[in-house]
Amino acid sequence: MFYIIDILGVIAFAISGVLVAIEKRMDLFGILIIAFVTSVGGGTLRDLLIGDTPVSWMRDMTYTYVIFISAVFAILFRSNINYLRTSLFLFDTIGIGLYTLVGIEKGIHANLHPIICIALGTITASFGGVIRDILCNEIPVIFRKEIYATPCILGGVTYFLLREFPIKENLVFVVAGVVVIVTRLLAVKFKISLPSIYPK
Amino acid sequence: MFYIIDILGVIAFAISGVLVAIEKRMDLFGILIIAFVTSVGGGTLRDLLIGDTPVSWMRDMTYTYVIFISAVFAILFRSNINYLRTSLFLFDTIGIGLYTLVGIEKGIHANLHPIICIALGTITASFGGVIRDILCNEIPVIFRKEIYATPCILGGVTYFLLREFPIKENLVFVVAGVVVIVTRLLAVKFKISLPSIYPK
Amino acid sequence: MFYIIDILGVIAFAISGVLVAIEKRMDLFGILIIAFVTSVGGGTLRDLLIGDTPVSWMRDMTYTYVIFISAVFAILFRSNINYLRTSLFLFDTIGIGLYTLVGIEKGIHANLHPIICIALGTITASFGGVIRDILCNEIPVIFRKEIYATPCILGGVTYFLLREFPIKENLVFVVAGVVVIVTRLLAVKFKISLPSIYPK
Repeated sequence: MFYIIDILGVIAFAISGVLVAIEKRMDLFGILIIAFVTSVGGGTLRDLLIGDTPVSWMRDMTYTYVIFISAVFAILFRSNINYLRTSLFLFDTIGIGLYTLVGIEKGIHANLHPIICIALGTITASFGGVIRDILCNEIPVIFRKEIYATPCILGGVTYFLLREFPIKENLVFVVAGVVVIVTRLLAVKFKISLPSIYPK
Repeated sequence: MFYIIDILGVIAFAISGVLVAIEKRMDLFGILIIAFVTSVGGGTLRDLLIGDTPVSWMRDMTYTYVIFISAVFAILFRSNINYLRTSLFLFDTIGIGLYTLVGIEKGIHANLHPIICIALGTITASFGGVIRDILCNEIPVIFRKEIYATPCILGGVTYFLLREFPIKENLVFVVAGVVVIVTRLLAVKFKISLPSIYPK
Repeated sequence: MFYIIDILGVIAFAISGVLVAIEKRMDLFGILIIAFVTSVGGGTLRDLLIGDTPVSWMRDMTYTYVIFISAVFAILFRSNINYLRTSLFLFDTIGIGLYTLVGIEKGIHANLHPIICIALGTITASFGGVIRDILCNEIPVIFRKEIYATPCILGGVTYFLLREFPIKENLVFVVAGVVVIVTRLLAVKFKISLPSIYPK
Protein backbone atom coordinates (compact mmCIF):
# COMPACT_ATOMS: atom_id res chain seq x y z
CA MET A 1 0.00 0.00 0.00
CA PHE A 2 2.70 2.44 1.05
CA TYR A 3 4.70 1.26 -1.91
CA ILE A 4 1.92 2.14 -4.33
CA ILE A 5 1.60 5.62 -2.85
CA ASP A 6 5.36 6.03 -3.05
CA ILE A 7 5.24 5.16 -6.74
CA LEU A 8 2.40 7.61 -7.36
CA GLY A 9 4.55 10.31 -5.78
CA VAL A 10 7.51 9.36 -7.96
CA ILE A 11 5.32 9.58 -11.06
CA ALA A 12 3.95 12.99 -10.12
CA PHE A 13 7.39 14.39 -9.31
CA ALA A 14 8.89 13.00 -12.52
CA ILE A 15 6.17 14.53 -14.67
CA SER A 16 6.49 17.89 -12.92
CA GLY A 17 10.23 17.75 -13.59
CA VAL A 18 9.61 17.10 -17.29
CA LEU A 19 7.28 20.08 -17.56
CA VAL A 20 9.79 22.44 -15.94
CA ALA A 21 12.64 21.13 -18.10
CA ILE A 22 10.60 21.59 -21.29
CA GLU A 23 9.84 25.16 -20.26
CA LYS A 24 13.62 25.67 -20.09
CA ARG A 25 13.93 24.13 -23.57
CA MET A 26 16.30 21.40 -22.43
CA ASP A 27 17.17 18.49 -24.69
CA LEU A 28 16.00 14.92 -24.10
CA PHE A 29 18.90 14.08 -21.82
CA GLY A 30 18.38 17.20 -19.75
CA ILE A 31 14.66 16.48 -19.42
CA LEU A 32 15.35 12.96 -18.17
CA ILE A 33 17.89 14.17 -15.62
CA ILE A 34 15.52 16.83 -14.31
CA ALA A 35 12.71 14.25 -14.04
CA PHE A 36 15.05 12.00 -12.13
CA VAL A 37 16.39 14.68 -9.83
CA THR A 38 12.93 16.01 -9.01
CA SER A 39 11.78 12.51 -8.04
CA VAL A 40 14.72 11.20 -6.08
CA GLY A 41 16.80 14.30 -5.27
CA GLY A 42 15.28 14.83 -1.83
CA GLY A 43 15.75 11.22 -0.80
CA THR A 44 19.27 11.24 -2.17
CA LEU A 45 20.25 14.28 -0.11
CA ARG A 46 18.67 12.64 2.95
CA ASP A 47 20.61 9.41 2.41
CA LEU A 48 23.87 11.32 1.93
CA LEU A 49 23.37 13.37 5.11
CA ILE A 50 22.76 10.32 7.27
CA GLY A 51 25.35 8.23 5.44
CA ASP A 52 22.99 5.54 4.12
CA THR A 53 24.85 4.69 0.91
CA PRO A 54 24.65 3.59 -1.88
CA VAL A 55 21.61 5.87 -1.93
CA SER A 56 18.13 4.32 -2.22
CA TRP A 57 17.49 4.61 -5.97
CA MET A 58 20.72 2.74 -6.65
CA ARG A 59 19.47 -0.27 -4.74
CA ASP A 60 15.88 -0.51 -5.99
CA MET A 61 15.53 -0.37 -9.77
CA THR A 62 11.79 0.35 -9.56
CA TYR A 63 12.52 4.07 -9.21
CA THR A 64 14.60 4.18 -12.37
CA TYR A 65 12.00 2.31 -14.42
CA VAL A 66 9.03 4.30 -13.15
CA ILE A 67 10.77 7.63 -13.66
CA PHE A 68 11.89 6.68 -17.15
CA ILE A 69 8.42 5.55 -18.23
CA SER A 70 6.72 8.58 -16.64
CA ALA A 71 9.16 10.94 -18.33
CA VAL A 72 8.70 9.36 -21.75
CA PHE A 73 4.94 9.50 -21.27
CA ALA A 74 5.08 13.15 -20.22
CA ILE A 75 7.29 14.08 -23.16
CA LEU A 76 4.98 12.34 -25.66
CA PHE A 77 1.78 13.81 -24.26
CA ARG A 78 3.21 17.14 -23.16
CA SER A 79 0.54 19.18 -24.91
CA ASN A 80 -2.28 17.19 -23.31
CA ILE A 81 -0.88 17.08 -19.82
CA ASN A 82 -2.90 20.06 -18.74
CA TYR A 83 -5.93 17.80 -18.50
CA LEU A 84 -4.09 15.84 -15.87
CA ARG A 85 -3.10 18.84 -13.82
CA THR A 86 -5.55 18.08 -11.00
CA SER A 87 -4.60 14.42 -10.78
CA LEU A 88 -0.92 15.37 -10.82
CA PHE A 89 -1.42 17.88 -8.05
CA LEU A 90 -3.15 15.18 -6.00
CA PHE A 91 -0.41 12.61 -6.65
CA ASP A 92 2.21 15.19 -5.77
CA THR A 93 0.47 16.11 -2.54
CA ILE A 94 0.00 12.48 -1.52
CA GLY A 95 3.62 11.94 -2.50
CA ILE A 96 5.01 14.59 -0.20
CA GLY A 97 2.87 13.19 2.62
CA LEU A 98 4.52 9.84 2.22
CA TYR A 99 8.00 11.17 1.49
CA THR A 100 7.83 13.13 4.74
CA LEU A 101 7.05 9.98 6.70
CA VAL A 102 9.77 7.96 4.95
CA GLY A 103 12.29 10.63 5.89
CA ILE A 104 11.13 10.71 9.51
CA GLU A 105 11.31 6.91 9.78
CA LYS A 106 14.86 6.91 8.43
CA GLY A 107 15.83 9.56 10.96
CA ILE A 108 14.35 7.58 13.84
CA HIS A 109 16.15 4.50 12.62
CA ALA A 110 19.44 6.46 12.73
CA ASN A 111 18.66 7.51 16.34
CA LEU A 112 18.41 11.18 15.52
CA HIS A 113 16.60 13.88 17.50
CA PRO A 114 12.89 14.37 16.58
CA ILE A 115 13.60 17.85 15.19
CA ILE A 116 16.28 16.42 12.94
CA CYS A 117 13.90 13.64 11.90
CA ILE A 118 11.31 16.23 10.89
CA ALA A 119 14.01 18.10 8.98
CA LEU A 120 14.88 14.87 7.18
CA GLY A 121 11.21 14.33 6.33
CA THR A 122 10.94 17.84 4.93
CA ILE A 123 14.18 17.43 2.99
CA THR A 124 12.93 14.17 1.48
CA ALA A 125 9.68 15.78 0.39
CA SER A 126 10.88 19.13 -0.83
CA PHE A 127 14.56 19.15 -1.83
CA GLY A 128 13.99 17.28 -5.08
CA GLY A 129 12.24 20.46 -6.20
CA VAL A 130 15.05 22.60 -4.79
CA ILE A 131 17.72 20.73 -6.76
CA ARG A 132 15.49 20.84 -9.88
CA ASP A 133 15.21 24.63 -9.59
CA ILE A 134 18.96 25.06 -9.05
CA LEU A 135 19.73 22.97 -12.14
CA CYS A 136 17.24 25.14 -14.04
CA ASN A 137 18.99 28.28 -12.77
CA GLU A 138 16.06 29.55 -10.71
CA ILE A 139 15.78 30.55 -7.06
CA PRO A 140 13.97 27.52 -5.57
CA VAL A 141 10.24 28.20 -5.68
CA ILE A 142 9.65 26.75 -2.20
CA PHE A 143 11.91 29.45 -0.74
CA ARG A 144 9.72 32.17 -2.17
CA LYS A 145 6.06 31.40 -2.06
CA GLU A 146 4.89 27.86 -2.32
CA ILE A 147 3.45 26.27 0.81
CA TYR A 148 5.30 23.03 0.63
CA ALA A 149 7.56 22.67 3.62
CA THR A 150 5.10 23.89 6.25
CA PRO A 151 2.68 20.94 5.78
CA CYS A 152 5.64 18.56 6.03
CA ILE A 153 6.73 20.15 9.29
CA LEU A 154 3.19 20.11 10.70
CA GLY A 155 2.82 16.46 9.74
CA GLY A 156 6.13 15.67 11.38
CA VAL A 157 5.15 17.44 14.60
CA THR A 158 1.84 15.54 14.61
CA TYR A 159 3.73 12.30 14.22
CA PHE A 160 5.94 12.87 17.25
CA LEU A 161 3.08 14.21 19.38
CA LEU A 162 0.89 11.18 18.66
CA ARG A 163 3.71 8.78 19.45
CA GLU A 164 3.49 10.00 23.05
CA PHE A 165 0.04 8.45 23.31
CA PRO A 166 -0.81 4.75 23.34
CA ILE A 167 -1.86 4.72 19.69
CA LYS A 168 -0.97 2.05 17.16
CA GLU A 169 2.11 2.85 15.07
CA ASN A 170 0.16 2.41 11.86
CA LEU A 171 -2.53 4.87 12.88
CA VAL A 172 0.06 7.46 13.89
CA PHE A 173 1.55 7.08 10.46
CA VAL A 174 -1.73 7.52 8.66
CA VAL A 175 -2.86 10.52 10.69
CA ALA A 176 0.46 12.33 10.25
CA GLY A 177 0.35 11.70 6.52
CA VAL A 178 -3.22 12.98 6.32
CA VAL A 179 -2.16 16.15 8.18
CA VAL A 180 0.50 16.84 5.54
CA ILE A 181 -1.93 16.23 2.70
CA VAL A 182 -4.90 18.15 4.11
CA THR A 183 -2.80 21.14 5.20
CA ARG A 184 -1.34 21.41 1.75
CA LEU A 185 -4.71 21.04 0.03
CA LEU A 186 -6.25 23.71 2.25
CA ALA A 187 -3.28 26.04 1.81
CA VAL A 188 -3.53 25.79 -1.95
CA LYS A 189 -7.32 26.01 -2.06
CA PHE A 190 -7.52 29.07 0.17
CA LYS A 191 -4.30 30.58 -1.10
CA ILE A 192 -2.86 30.59 2.40
CA SER A 193 0.82 31.41 2.55
CA LEU A 194 3.38 32.09 5.25
CA PRO A 195 2.95 35.57 6.75
CA SER A 196 4.94 37.99 4.60
CA ILE A 197 7.62 40.09 6.23
CA TYR A 198 7.76 42.52 3.33
CA PRO A 199 5.80 45.76 3.01
CA LYS A 200 3.15 45.62 0.32
CA MET B 1 36.25 28.44 24.98
CA PHE B 2 36.46 27.07 21.44
CA TYR B 3 32.82 26.13 21.72
CA ILE B 4 31.83 29.73 22.50
CA ILE B 5 33.76 31.03 19.50
CA ASP B 6 32.17 28.37 17.36
CA ILE B 7 28.72 29.53 18.44
CA LEU B 8 29.62 33.18 17.74
CA GLY B 9 30.57 32.13 14.24
CA VAL B 10 27.30 30.25 13.79
CA ILE B 11 25.36 33.33 14.91
CA ALA B 12 27.23 35.63 12.53
CA PHE B 13 26.79 33.27 9.59
CA ALA B 14 23.09 32.73 10.33
CA ILE B 15 22.42 36.46 10.48
CA SER B 16 24.33 37.10 7.27
CA GLY B 17 22.24 34.38 5.65
CA VAL B 18 19.03 36.05 6.79
CA LEU B 19 20.10 39.38 5.33
CA VAL B 20 20.91 37.88 1.94
CA ALA B 21 17.64 35.92 1.87
CA ILE B 22 15.61 39.02 2.71
CA GLU B 23 17.33 40.89 -0.10
CA LYS B 24 16.07 38.11 -2.39
CA ARG B 25 12.57 38.56 -0.91
CA MET B 26 12.31 34.95 0.21
CA ASP B 27 9.50 33.83 2.50
CA LEU B 28 10.03 32.80 6.14
CA PHE B 29 10.86 29.21 5.29
CA GLY B 30 13.36 30.25 2.64
CA ILE B 31 15.02 32.68 5.05
CA LEU B 32 15.41 29.97 7.69
CA ILE B 33 16.90 27.53 5.20
CA ILE B 34 19.39 30.09 3.93
CA ALA B 35 20.38 30.96 7.51
CA PHE B 36 20.90 27.29 8.18
CA VAL B 37 22.83 26.58 5.02
CA THR B 38 25.12 29.58 5.48
CA SER B 39 25.98 28.43 9.00
CA VAL B 40 26.44 24.72 8.56
CA GLY B 41 26.77 24.24 4.80
CA GLY B 42 30.56 24.28 4.80
CA GLY B 43 30.84 21.79 7.64
CA THR B 44 28.21 19.59 6.02
CA LEU B 45 30.11 19.43 2.73
CA ARG B 46 33.31 18.64 4.68
CA ASP B 47 31.61 15.82 6.60
CA LEU B 48 30.15 14.38 3.39
CA LEU B 49 33.52 14.44 1.59
CA ILE B 50 35.32 12.59 4.37
CA GLY B 51 32.36 10.32 5.10
CA ASP B 52 31.72 11.43 8.67
CA THR B 53 27.96 10.89 8.78
CA PRO B 54 25.35 11.65 10.05
CA VAL B 55 26.79 15.14 9.54
CA SER B 56 27.69 17.25 12.59
CA TRP B 57 24.57 19.40 12.94
CA MET B 58 22.42 16.28 13.06
CA ARG B 59 24.26 15.04 16.13
CA ASP B 60 24.49 18.24 18.18
CA MET B 61 21.20 20.12 18.53
CA THR B 62 22.96 23.30 19.70
CA TYR B 63 23.48 24.33 16.09
CA THR B 64 19.80 24.05 15.23
CA TYR B 65 18.70 26.03 18.28
CA VAL B 66 21.31 28.77 17.89
CA ILE B 67 20.59 29.20 14.19
CA PHE B 68 16.84 29.29 14.73
CA ILE B 69 17.06 31.90 17.50
CA SER B 70 19.59 34.01 15.55
CA ALA B 71 17.42 33.91 12.46
CA VAL B 72 14.26 34.91 14.32
CA PHE B 73 16.20 37.73 15.99
CA ALA B 74 17.59 38.90 12.66
CA ILE B 75 14.18 38.83 11.01
CA LEU B 76 12.55 40.82 13.83
CA PHE B 77 15.28 43.44 14.01
CA ARG B 78 16.18 43.45 10.34
CA SER B 79 15.91 47.21 9.99
CA ASN B 80 18.21 47.84 12.96
CA ILE B 81 20.80 45.27 12.10
CA ASN B 82 22.99 47.81 10.39
CA TYR B 83 24.10 49.03 13.81
CA LEU B 84 25.52 45.58 14.41
CA ARG B 85 27.40 45.42 11.17
CA THR B 86 30.83 45.82 12.77
CA SER B 87 30.16 43.23 15.47
CA LEU B 88 28.81 40.84 12.89
CA PHE B 89 31.87 41.29 10.72
CA LEU B 90 34.06 40.53 13.73
CA PHE B 91 32.04 37.43 14.71
CA ASP B 92 32.14 36.26 11.14
CA THR B 93 35.90 36.74 10.90
CA ILE B 94 36.52 34.98 14.21
CA GLY B 95 34.12 32.30 12.99
CA ILE B 96 36.04 31.53 9.84
CA GLY B 97 39.25 31.40 11.86
CA LEU B 98 37.79 28.69 14.03
CA TYR B 99 35.95 26.89 11.24
CA THR B 100 39.24 26.63 9.35
CA LEU B 101 40.90 24.96 12.31
CA VAL B 102 37.97 22.60 12.90
CA GLY B 103 38.19 21.49 9.27
CA ILE B 104 41.95 20.96 9.49
CA GLU B 105 41.63 18.93 12.68
CA LYS B 106 39.02 16.71 11.05
CA GLY B 107 41.29 16.16 8.08
CA ILE B 108 44.23 15.20 10.30
CA HIS B 109 41.97 12.84 12.19
CA ALA B 110 41.07 11.15 8.90
CA ASN B 111 44.80 10.80 8.07
CA LEU B 112 44.65 13.06 5.06
CA HIS B 113 47.52 14.95 3.41
CA PRO B 114 48.21 18.45 4.85
CA ILE B 115 47.15 20.12 1.60
CA ILE B 116 43.84 18.25 1.72
CA CYS B 117 43.45 19.22 5.39
CA ILE B 118 43.91 22.89 4.48
CA ALA B 119 41.35 22.42 1.69
CA LEU B 120 38.93 20.94 4.23
CA GLY B 121 39.51 23.92 6.53
CA THR B 122 38.84 26.34 3.72
CA ILE B 123 35.74 24.41 2.66
CA THR B 124 34.42 24.45 6.23
CA ALA B 125 34.91 28.20 6.49
CA SER B 126 33.78 29.32 3.09
CA PHE B 127 31.43 26.87 1.39
CA GLY B 128 28.44 27.76 3.54
CA GLY B 129 28.55 31.07 1.70
CA VAL B 130 29.01 29.32 -1.62
CA ILE B 131 25.92 27.16 -1.14
CA ARG B 132 23.98 30.21 0.09
CA ASP B 133 24.86 32.09 -3.10
CA ILE B 134 23.94 29.15 -5.32
CA LEU B 135 20.54 28.81 -3.64
CA CYS B 136 20.08 32.55 -4.18
CA ASN B 137 20.96 32.16 -7.86
CA GLU B 138 24.17 34.23 -7.71
CA ILE B 139 27.74 33.44 -8.72
CA PRO B 140 29.38 32.80 -5.33
CA VAL B 141 30.84 36.08 -4.12
CA ILE B 142 34.04 34.44 -2.84
CA PHE B 143 34.85 33.37 -6.40
CA ARG B 144 34.77 36.95 -7.59
CA LYS B 145 36.21 39.40 -5.14
CA GLU B 146 35.93 38.76 -1.47
CA ILE B 147 39.14 37.85 0.35
CA TYR B 148 37.81 34.95 2.26
CA ALA B 149 39.59 31.80 1.26
CA THR B 150 43.12 33.23 1.19
CA PRO B 151 43.25 33.92 4.95
CA CYS B 152 42.00 30.37 5.58
CA ILE B 153 44.74 28.96 3.40
CA LEU B 154 47.42 31.15 5.03
CA GLY B 155 46.21 30.10 8.48
CA GLY B 156 46.31 26.48 7.42
CA VAL B 157 49.84 26.76 6.08
CA THR B 158 50.90 28.44 9.35
CA TYR B 159 49.37 25.59 11.28
CA PHE B 160 51.33 22.91 9.47
CA LEU B 161 54.58 24.92 9.51
CA LEU B 162 54.38 25.48 13.27
CA ARG B 163 53.66 21.84 13.92
CA GLU B 164 57.18 21.10 12.66
CA PHE B 165 58.58 22.96 15.68
CA PRO B 166 58.42 21.85 19.33
CA ILE B 167 55.52 24.14 20.13
CA LYS B 168 52.53 23.20 22.24
CA GLU B 169 49.50 22.02 20.20
CA ASN B 170 47.29 24.65 21.79
CA LEU B 171 49.61 27.49 20.88
CA VAL B 172 49.86 26.30 17.29
CA PHE B 173 46.10 26.34 17.17
CA VAL B 174 45.81 29.86 18.53
CA VAL B 175 48.52 31.32 16.30
CA ALA B 176 47.05 29.76 13.16
CA GLY B 177 43.60 31.06 14.08
CA VAL B 178 45.01 34.53 14.68
CA VAL B 179 46.69 34.46 11.27
CA VAL B 180 43.35 33.78 9.60
CA ILE B 181 41.63 36.56 11.53
CA VAL B 182 44.34 39.20 11.18
CA THR B 183 44.91 38.53 7.49
CA ARG B 184 41.24 38.93 6.81
CA LEU B 185 40.93 42.08 8.91
CA LEU B 186 43.92 43.65 7.14
CA ALA B 187 42.67 42.61 3.73
CA VAL B 188 39.30 44.21 4.34
CA LYS B 189 40.73 47.33 6.01
CA PHE B 190 43.25 48.04 3.28
CA LYS B 191 41.02 46.74 0.49
CA ILE B 192 43.64 44.20 -0.50
CA SER B 193 42.44 41.63 -3.00
CA LEU B 194 43.98 38.87 -5.05
CA PRO B 195 45.99 40.24 -7.99
CA SER B 196 43.58 40.70 -10.88
CA ILE B 197 44.29 38.93 -14.15
CA TYR B 198 41.90 41.14 -16.09
CA PRO B 199 42.83 44.31 -17.95
CA LYS B 200 41.37 47.43 -16.33
CA MET C 1 48.59 3.42 -19.40
CA PHE C 2 45.11 4.04 -18.03
CA TYR C 3 46.68 6.33 -15.47
CA ILE C 4 48.24 8.50 -18.17
CA ILE C 5 44.94 8.79 -20.01
CA ASP C 6 43.24 9.65 -16.74
CA ILE C 7 45.73 12.45 -16.17
CA LEU C 8 45.25 13.76 -19.73
CA GLY C 9 41.53 13.93 -18.99
CA VAL C 10 42.16 15.79 -15.73
CA ILE C 11 44.35 18.31 -17.56
CA ALA C 12 41.76 18.91 -20.27
CA PHE C 13 38.92 19.33 -17.77
CA ALA C 14 40.99 21.68 -15.58
CA ILE C 15 41.88 23.90 -18.52
CA SER C 16 38.29 24.00 -19.74
CA GLY C 17 37.27 25.03 -16.22
CA VAL C 18 39.80 27.86 -16.21
CA LEU C 19 38.51 29.19 -19.52
CA VAL C 20 34.89 29.22 -18.34
CA ALA C 21 35.85 30.88 -15.03
CA ILE C 22 37.82 33.60 -16.81
CA GLU C 23 34.85 34.29 -19.04
CA LYS C 24 32.88 34.89 -15.83
CA ARG C 25 35.64 37.24 -14.64
CA MET C 26 36.29 35.28 -11.48
CA ASP C 27 39.32 36.01 -9.32
CA LEU C 28 42.28 33.64 -8.98
CA PHE C 29 40.71 31.65 -6.17
CA GLY C 30 37.46 31.24 -8.08
CA ILE C 31 39.32 30.11 -11.19
CA LEU C 32 41.21 27.45 -9.23
CA ILE C 33 38.03 26.15 -7.62
CA ILE C 34 36.25 25.93 -10.96
CA ALA C 35 39.24 24.11 -12.49
CA PHE C 36 39.16 21.69 -9.59
CA VAL C 37 35.43 21.13 -9.66
CA THR C 38 35.35 20.58 -13.41
CA SER C 39 38.06 17.93 -13.11
CA VAL C 40 36.99 15.99 -10.07
CA GLY C 41 33.37 17.04 -9.50
CA GLY C 42 31.88 14.08 -11.37
CA GLY C 43 34.02 11.53 -9.56
CA THR C 44 33.29 13.21 -6.25
CA LEU C 45 29.53 12.99 -6.77
CA ARG C 46 29.94 9.33 -7.79
CA ASP C 47 31.96 8.55 -4.65
CA LEU C 48 29.43 10.30 -2.43
CA LEU C 49 26.48 8.43 -3.98
CA ILE C 50 28.05 5.02 -3.45
CA GLY C 51 29.58 5.98 -0.10
CA ASP C 52 33.23 5.55 -1.05
CA THR C 53 34.74 8.20 1.23
CA PRO C 54 37.01 10.08 1.74
CA VAL C 55 36.44 10.80 -1.95
CA SER C 56 39.16 9.86 -4.48
CA TRP C 57 40.99 13.17 -4.88
CA MET C 58 41.53 13.34 -1.12
CA ARG C 59 43.44 10.07 -1.17
CA ASP C 60 45.65 10.57 -4.25
CA MET C 61 47.50 13.88 -4.33
CA THR C 62 48.30 13.52 -8.04
CA TYR C 63 44.94 15.07 -8.92
CA THR C 64 45.57 18.17 -6.82
CA TYR C 65 49.04 18.73 -8.25
CA VAL C 66 48.02 18.13 -11.86
CA ILE C 67 45.00 20.39 -11.60
CA PHE C 68 46.98 23.15 -9.91
CA ILE C 69 49.75 23.09 -12.51
CA SER C 70 47.28 22.89 -15.41
CA ALA C 71 45.30 25.81 -14.03
CA VAL C 72 48.37 28.00 -13.53
CA PHE C 73 49.51 27.13 -17.04
CA ALA C 74 46.08 27.95 -18.48
CA ILE C 75 45.91 31.26 -16.63
CA LEU C 76 49.37 32.31 -17.81
CA PHE C 77 48.81 31.35 -21.42
CA ARG C 78 45.13 32.13 -21.58
CA SER C 79 45.41 34.25 -24.70
CA ASN C 80 47.31 31.55 -26.59
CA ILE C 81 45.17 28.64 -25.55
CA ASN C 82 43.12 28.83 -28.69
CA TYR C 83 45.97 27.15 -30.54
CA LEU C 84 45.48 24.18 -28.28
CA ARG C 85 41.76 23.93 -28.79
CA THR C 86 41.94 20.79 -30.91
CA SER C 87 44.33 18.98 -28.56
CA LEU C 88 42.16 19.96 -25.61
CA PHE C 89 39.06 18.66 -27.31
CA LEU C 90 40.84 15.37 -27.94
CA PHE C 91 42.09 15.10 -24.35
CA ASP C 92 38.62 15.91 -23.10
CA THR C 93 37.01 13.28 -25.31
CA ILE C 94 39.54 10.63 -24.34
CA GLY C 95 39.03 11.74 -20.75
CA ILE C 96 35.29 11.15 -20.76
CA GLY C 97 35.84 7.77 -22.35
CA LEU C 98 38.03 6.75 -19.45
CA TYR C 99 35.96 8.48 -16.77
CA THR C 100 32.93 6.54 -17.99
CA LEU C 101 34.75 3.25 -17.56
CA VAL C 102 36.11 4.19 -14.13
CA GLY C 103 32.57 4.97 -12.99
CA ILE C 104 31.22 1.70 -14.36
CA GLU C 105 34.00 -0.30 -12.68
CA LYS C 106 33.26 1.35 -9.35
CA GLY C 107 29.57 0.53 -9.73
CA ILE C 108 30.30 -3.13 -10.51
CA HIS C 109 32.60 -3.27 -7.52
CA ALA C 110 29.73 -2.02 -5.34
CA ASN C 111 27.46 -4.76 -6.77
CA LEU C 112 25.08 -2.35 -8.43
CA HIS C 113 22.70 -3.03 -11.33
CA PRO C 114 24.22 -2.52 -14.83
CA ILE C 115 21.90 0.43 -15.50
CA ILE C 116 23.06 2.09 -12.30
CA CYS C 117 26.67 1.36 -13.25
CA ILE C 118 26.15 3.10 -16.58
CA ALA C 119 24.57 6.02 -14.73
CA LEU C 120 27.64 6.18 -12.47
CA GLY C 121 29.90 6.19 -15.51
CA THR C 122 27.93 9.01 -17.09
CA ILE C 123 27.92 10.96 -13.82
CA THR C 124 31.70 10.56 -13.51
CA ALA C 125 32.24 11.84 -17.03
CA SER C 126 29.74 14.64 -17.19
CA PHE C 127 28.80 16.02 -13.78
CA GLY C 128 32.04 17.90 -13.29
CA GLY C 129 30.77 20.13 -16.07
CA VAL C 130 27.31 20.29 -14.50
CA ILE C 131 28.69 21.51 -11.15
CA ARG C 132 30.97 23.96 -12.98
CA ASP C 133 27.98 25.45 -14.80
CA ILE C 134 25.92 25.69 -11.61
CA LEU C 135 28.75 27.50 -9.81
CA CYS C 136 28.95 29.83 -12.81
CA ASN C 137 25.20 30.45 -12.61
CA GLU C 138 24.34 28.86 -15.95
CA ILE C 139 21.91 26.13 -16.92
CA PRO C 140 24.28 23.16 -17.43
CA VAL C 141 25.25 23.07 -21.10
CA ILE C 142 24.93 19.28 -21.30
CA PHE C 143 21.22 19.57 -20.49
CA ARG C 144 20.67 21.80 -23.47
CA LYS C 145 22.66 20.86 -26.48
CA GLU C 146 26.02 19.24 -26.09
CA ILE C 147 26.30 15.58 -27.00
CA TYR C 148 28.17 14.45 -23.98
CA ALA C 149 26.13 11.99 -22.02
CA THR C 150 24.86 9.93 -24.95
CA PRO C 151 28.33 8.63 -25.93
CA CYS C 152 28.92 7.67 -22.28
CA ILE C 153 25.67 5.74 -22.20
CA LEU C 154 26.39 4.01 -25.52
CA GLY C 155 29.86 3.08 -24.30
CA GLY C 156 28.38 1.72 -21.08
CA VAL C 157 25.83 -0.39 -22.95
CA THR C 158 28.60 -1.73 -25.19
CA TYR C 159 30.59 -2.67 -22.12
CA PHE C 160 27.80 -4.74 -20.59
CA LEU C 161 26.84 -6.34 -23.91
CA LEU C 162 30.42 -7.46 -24.61
CA ARG C 163 30.81 -8.90 -21.14
CA GLU C 164 28.21 -11.49 -22.10
CA PHE C 165 30.64 -12.92 -24.65
CA PRO C 166 33.86 -14.80 -23.91
CA ILE C 167 36.05 -11.76 -24.56
CA LYS C 168 39.02 -10.70 -22.45
CA GLU C 169 38.19 -8.10 -19.82
CA ASN C 170 40.87 -5.76 -21.17
CA LEU C 171 39.51 -5.87 -24.68
CA VAL C 172 35.96 -5.18 -23.46
CA PHE C 173 37.35 -2.16 -21.67
CA VAL C 174 39.16 -0.82 -24.72
CA VAL C 175 36.26 -1.35 -27.12
CA ALA C 176 33.77 0.35 -24.80
CA GLY C 177 36.13 3.29 -24.34
CA VAL C 178 36.59 3.58 -28.10
CA VAL C 179 32.81 3.59 -28.58
CA VAL C 180 32.52 6.59 -26.23
CA ILE C 181 35.32 8.44 -27.98
CA VAL C 182 34.29 7.70 -31.57
CA THR C 183 30.62 8.45 -30.97
CA ARG C 184 31.50 11.80 -29.48
CA LEU C 185 33.95 12.67 -32.26
CA LEU C 186 31.39 11.77 -34.92
CA ALA C 187 28.62 13.67 -33.14
CA VAL C 188 30.75 16.80 -32.96
CA LYS C 189 32.12 16.47 -36.49
CA PHE C 190 28.72 15.94 -38.11
CA LYS C 191 26.90 18.21 -35.68
CA ILE C 192 24.62 15.36 -34.65
CA SER C 193 22.46 16.12 -31.64
CA LEU C 194 19.61 14.43 -29.82
CA PRO C 195 16.30 14.73 -31.74
CA SER C 196 14.70 18.01 -30.75
CA ILE C 197 11.20 17.96 -29.30
CA TYR C 198 10.67 21.65 -29.91
CA PRO C 199 9.06 23.21 -32.99
CA LYS C 200 11.55 25.13 -35.13
